[in-house]
Amino acid sequence: MSHKSDIEIAREAAKRPIQEIGAKLGIGAEDLLPYGHDKAKVSQPFIDSLAGRPDGKLILVTAINPTPAGEGKTTTTVGLGDGLNRIGKKAAICIREASLGPCFGMKGGAAGGGYAQVVPMEEMNLHFTGDFHAITSAHNLLAAMIDNHIYWGNALGIDQRRVVWRRVMDMNDRALRDIVTSLGGVPNGFPRQTGFDITVASEVMAILCLASDLADLERRLGDIIVAYTRDKAPITCRDIGADGAMAVLLKDAIQPNLVQTLENNPAFVHGGPFANIAHGCNSVMATKTALKLADYVVTEAGFGADLGAEKFMNIKCRKAGIAPSAVVVVATVRAMKMNGGVAKADLGAENVEAVKAGCPNLGRHIENVKSFGVPVVVAINHFSGDTEAEIAAVEEYVAGLGSEAVLCKHWALGSEGTEELARRVVALAESGQAEFEPLYPDDMGLFEKIETIAKRIYRADSVVADAKVLSQLREWEAAGFGSLPVCMAKTQYSFTTDPTVRGAPEGFPIPIREVRLSAGAGFVVAICGEIMTMPGLPSAPAAESIRLNADGFVEGLF
Amino acid sequence: MSHKSDIEIAREAAKRPIQEIGAKLGIGAEDLLPYGHDKAKVSQPFIDSLAGRPDGKLILVTAINPTPAGEGKTTTTVGLGDGLNRIGKKAAICIREASLGPCFGMKGGAAGGGYAQVVPMEEMNLHFTGDFHAITSAHNLLAAMIDNHIYWGNALGIDQRRVVWRRVMDMNDRALRDIVTSLGGVPNGFPRQTGFDITVASEVMAILCLASDLADLERRLGDIIVAYTRDKAPITCRDIGADGAMAVLLKDAIQPNLVQTLENNPAFVHGGPFANIAHGCNSVMATKTALKLADYVVTEAGFGADLGAEKFMNIKCRKAGIAPSAVVVVATVRAMKMNGGVAKADLGAENVEAVKAGCPNLGRHIENVKSFGVPVVVAINHFSGDTEAEIAAVEEYVAGLGSEAVLCKHWALGSEGTEELARRVVALAESGQAEFEPLYPDDMGLFEKIETIAKRIYRADSVVADAKVLSQLREWEAAGFGSLPVCMAKTQYSFTTDPTVRGAPEGFPIPIREVRLSAGAGFVVAICGEIMTMPGLPSAPAAESIRLNADGFVEGLF
Repeated sequence: MSHKSDIEIAREAAKRPIQEIGAKLGIGAEDLLPYGHDKAKVSQPFIDSLAGRPDGKLILVTAINPTPAGEGKTTTTVGLGDGLNRIGKKAAICIREASLGPCFGMKGGAAGGGYAQVVPMEEMNLHFTGDFHAITSAHNLLAAMIDNHIYWGNALGIDQRRVVWRRVMDMNDRALRDIVTSLGGVPNGFPRQTGFDITVASEVMAILCLASDLADLERRLGDIIVAYTRDKAPITCRDIGADGAMAVLLKDAIQPNLVQTLENNPAFVHGGPFANIAHGCNSVMATKTALKLADYVVTEAGFGADLGAEKFMNIKCRKAGIAPSAVVVVATVRAMKMNGGVAKADLGAENVEAVKAGCPNLGRHIENVKSFGVPVVVAINHFSGDTEAEIAAVEEYVAGLGSEAVLCKHWALGSEGTEELARRVVALAESGQAEFEPLYPDDMGLFEKIETIAKRIYRADSVVADAKVLSQLREWEAAGFGSLPVCMAKTQYSFTTDPTVRGAPEGFPIPIREVRLSAGAGFVVAICGEIMTMPGLPSAPAAESIRLNADGFVEGLF
Repeated sequence: MSHKSDIEIAREAAKRPIQEIGAKLGIGAEDLLPYGHDKAKVSQPFIDSLAGRPDGKLILVTAINPTPAGEGKTTTTVGLGDGLNRIGKKAAICIREASLGPCFGMKGGAAGGGYAQVVPMEEMNLHFTGDFHAITSAHNLLAAMIDNHIYWGNALGIDQRRVVWRRVMDMNDRALRDIVTSLGGVPNGFPRQTGFDITVASEVMAILCLASDLADLERRLGDIIVAYTRDKAPITCRDIGADGAMAVLLKDAIQPNLVQTLENNPAFVHGGPFANIAHGCNSVMATKTALKLADYVVTEAGFGADLGAEKFMNIKCRKAGIAPSAVVVVATVRAMKMNGGVAKADLGAENVEAVKAGCPNLGRHIENVKSFGVPVVVAINHFSGDTEAEIAAVEEYVAGLGSEAVLCKHWALGSEGTEELARRVVALAESGQAEFEPLYPDDMGLFEKIETIAKRIYRADSVVADAKVLSQLREWEAAGFGSLPVCMAKTQYSFTTDPTVRGAPEGFPIPIREVRLSAGAGFVVAICGEIMTMPGLPSAPAAESIRLNADGFVEGLF
């Protein structure tokens, strides 16, 4: 059992040159675009050459509703990938990139933990291969071109009050949430109120992650609705003429990034859309490329299964034409206890009854995932304080639902700790049980799609929306957007819209505060409650203690 | 004679793997951090290992005042580098990186032209190795932390009216020049008026380009003055606690980028500070690294010699402890004609008298450069329409000043066209004539430094500044900043502050509109006239025609 910190373990990693990692998947050195010696992009021509190959099996890792106890979803994704390689399968993992801005607020983004990590950790929390910077540039070029169009005569007749395209920055900067631009007179344009979101909230990010290739990316960029005329006719990015230049800015960013786990297994880390106003999954390009190269691809979705897995199934899989062969739901004894009413400070004491009381949250997620037609296995991510009786309680509960829970010790042991999980995943995937089907058909009405998710996944008894929201949805249906899937923006901490309600509640209302159309990404966002798209820094930001030490290592980032 | 466009020539380049280019300078593959196969950063430990080596000879390429006819300074820098290699010298070139934002307005930034170019051209005009994005992030982190400090209680007592640190974006976006932030009530902070500059105008850019190493970078970042208290006491970046995290964001960006010329010779392309409110030279790190690795290092400075060479000598050389062994002043027959009063439309016709009438502009620059104690050679950058009589007129004029003008055909012929220039430069550099001395001593008063530049370089008869400017300069002297050099922000088109006055005027006033302190970069900026730090896009921005073609090439960027 190690007592080293994640960053200490990451720094001691025996990294192999990225060309060796690529070779494990049959990618030649000439088909990798290196960024330093331990990161590379997989070249587009090579990806294009894979088209005729069969796909490997896709495994989704999702989780219970997150609690302050931590569930370890990314850690389990990495651990399972290593475990599959350990038992002789050619496996790769696919996860999201970290956002730079929040690293300077609270803490760096995780790429696993303990002995189940992806490296190079520091670079992945800083600029990495520049994808997010490219997205920021593309997004802001469009914004500059909109104001420039208005400045030079506004031939498209944009209603300056109805410009819906804001700007983005990969930074936690509350001062930019709500601003007035173009002050200073004639040379600076027409003043209007707007603001900045954080880059991961950009529709360009969602588009990059859903695009099937560069041509599809450019088409989707063109479809973005940026403003409306006084008659409420939409103005698109294509009308502004920015789609081509944005695609140029994104031509490298769309190529998936390859790095490695601590055990030198291949990991694709690509894209990072918000899991609330967007779908929260790594890129389709990375997932599909990995499926062509590996027999098993382990990926994850943001937040708990009610949000993350639901969007993975109904948005990403539906749109990309892919389907999971098995799903791993991550749970911890500690999180079950918190769902059972135990406070974080009291998690150290054995409490089997609380574990049992919290299990229905897990049960609900298992049931939901199965409703998509895919087999489920539960991974109990082991913490050193878990007692045998507590673990047994989870195992028994899951067995009662006709599934299996496997204790995993990858945090402490690496792939040795996920051997059993890997074997169980292989058995499920090979069983042919999976008959994936999305929750709702394309041709269901937009409001009915929201209702279906709310009632069948969250177990709400009603969806509450005022007439403005309903008429907006009907307008979009009339305009040809009715076949889009719905992207729910809801708290991740509860099945309800109240983050304090744990467990498995039933029979509550889901209020829809606002709906937004992401015509380029290809979904309608339904916002339930407050959604923050530009975070702020805390009173003592992490940045104050981040610096390079005398050895050239980054201190304070984690 | 080629009729291919620059981009066509660049695409046909027979590029060698960047490791081969590094090997020419003795840089091992392990000491290069590759970015793709044709770009790399030179690793910091390798640079540190060079400390004891002797320096090669530094050659500065500067020019007459730019005219719409084009003088070809970067092209000549590249051509001379190739020419030196051709005659058997181990030579490298050092130039600046291009800014992304302006590429979407008028045209892409040049990296030479014809058969004297640096490649990969497209990448160098897009994200390149991410240096400018890193500078943008570091700059804006400091901005976010300043507003965050005020938000959480303002323990430092910052006067919100006196926050002088703006934000930056690498984009031409006039709407961001003048904005009000923090609207929307309590959670978003205290509203105040501020704005964005383009990234190249950031003091962080100037600091990156003047820093001798990472420790010096962090110290200079800490010294940045970001705001003042009500009592006008300065608040620094160090007070805000952002210096360490900013250095972390810049730890890769500070490492020089290595690329290659069309003739596969090494080119360092690193940093790109504004040539008006900053000093307009590539980084000290790149120049010093190149000097350790090559026998000849050819570099350039922004704008004409009155601004670029003056700042190169008085700021960069003084601060970095380097000195040029010879200076090349680039002129063209066409530009001489324009200085002699010919309109651009009439440049096609032979006009020897106009050439002669325009030569005093060149003569003034030659005289100015010689006043720094360094020998000069003039490079006549050949255009196909130049006549023998016109060329002879320039040669005779320069000979009359005791210098030599060499006709160069690198645009059409590559290094074959600069063989003679290269031999002449070697002869001058080996002659030991250079006895470099800055124009003024550190301990001269700040206003006297401005006067010295204005009178001895521009040939003004007076410097006009109101009492506020004078008292500001005296305050800075009292606060210990009196020993800093002065960075002049003046139009590049004329020795005067009126861009329409060509030739070699004398006896005019230089008005100082404003002075600014760049305490981190280490200079006082004297602003003569209007200086635009955030450009706008034109009515038909280049971005509208930029896109990827069916072959995956970028169209419209150049």
